Amino acid sequence: MKQLDFFYFFGSGYAYLSVMRIDAMAKQSRVAVRWRPFNVRTVMAENNIALRTQAAKVRYMWRDIERRAATHGLPYVRAPIWPTDPELLANRVGMVAAEEGWCEGYTVASFKTWYLEGMELGSRAHLEHVLAPLGQDVDDVIAKADSPRAHERLKAETDAARSYGIFGSPAFVVYGETFWGDDRLEEALAWAAGRHELQTHDGED
Amino acid sequence: MKQLDFFYFFGSGYAYLSVMRIDAMAKQSRVAVRWRPFNVRTVMAENNIALRTQAAKVRYMWRDIERRAATHGLPYVRAPIWPTDPELLANRVGMVAAEEGWCEGYTVASFKTWYLEGMELGSRAHLEHVLAPLGQDVDDVIAKADSPRAHERLKAETDAARSYGIFGSPAFVVYGETFWGDDRLEEALAWAAGRHELQTHDGED
Repeated sequence: MKQLDFFYFFGSGYAYLSVMRIDAMAKQSRVAVRWRPFNVRTVMAENNIALRTQAAKVRYMWRDIERRAATHGLPYVRAPIWPTDPELLANRVGMVAAEEGWCEGYTVASFKTWYLEGMELGSRAHLEHVLAPLGQDVDDVIAKADSPRAHERLKAETDAARSYGIFGSPAFVVYGETFWGDDRLEEALAWAAGRHELQTHDGED
Repeated sequence: MKQLDFFYFFGSGYAYLSVMRIDAMAKQSRVAVRWRPFNVRTVMAENNIALRTQAAKVRYMWRDIERRAATHGLPYVRAPIWPTDPELLANRVGMVAAEEGWCEGYTVASFKTWYLEGMELGSRAHLEHVLAPLGQDVDDVIAKADSPRAHERLKAETDAARSYGIFGSPAFVVYGETFWGDDRLEEALAWAAGRHELQTHDGED
């Protein structure tokens, strides 16, 4: 089966749109998705991208996400708490979830909790809200997320993202080709489905 | 007639895609376009956006533009000379052209020359190549572009862009609503055509 690597960060605004859309779209395109959280802060810092200091861009971002949630028929209440997950705990729980095979369910539940319930990612409230319905023990998962193994996996996944030229979240990698931003999800899936060549044509996008 | 303000910079990579697409698309949507070059460097500096220092992002940008030119059936040879127009001369000629009513023709010819002929924007070669076919005298136009009037207009247009929350090029403003990036051109035109409300629905993008 064709495969797409979905790189994202718990705390990335635009990732919400992809998290909510990717499963149904990938099934329709018969593409398997690997959910790969990584530490976008590291690669942004390395590229001198400091979103927090870009006031006009940040204002635009939340308005743009609101418009595009409406376009896609996705629930939206208001801009979420941001920045969030200061200790990267939500992201390190993602490492545990990826290793144990429940990353997709954890991710979807977490982004809904962040955007729609107004909770801070990585807070006790967030983790209690999403882990119990997944059959996970909160204290047990936090202990694993605080272990060296989870820290090392986050570093390794971030190294992998960097090696693909990724500098932001969300990003999609297909056949070594990188696509950045939720607005490139359709293009990445088309690339995965086989139209992965550059050729001019007369069709529409 | 409905109106869209098209803000762009001579030297902005993604603006090429919009410059080549906007006329036909706007006619189809029955939307009038105002071509408004502005100094994107000023607003990027104000927002701490220094694209030149973001190596991975810049590499991605040219590959992304190449892919999207192919998707849209637009001519593409290679990534153009960048950065370009160091003295903003191409942009100041844009001020003269906008005031005298030949900005669209000058813009399309300039971006083609930059991308497809490999010329530097603002060079003597570029200006001679595009101004003569437009019936303009090169020395006369450069004298006007060097005058205080052109400098002041560029500053005023940049102030206007800033007032709309613009931080990059290209951008589109419709009914006071700002859209950033060539990939938002369809959305901006739809907004202009009257679907300018936020409401969830089940349709596709």
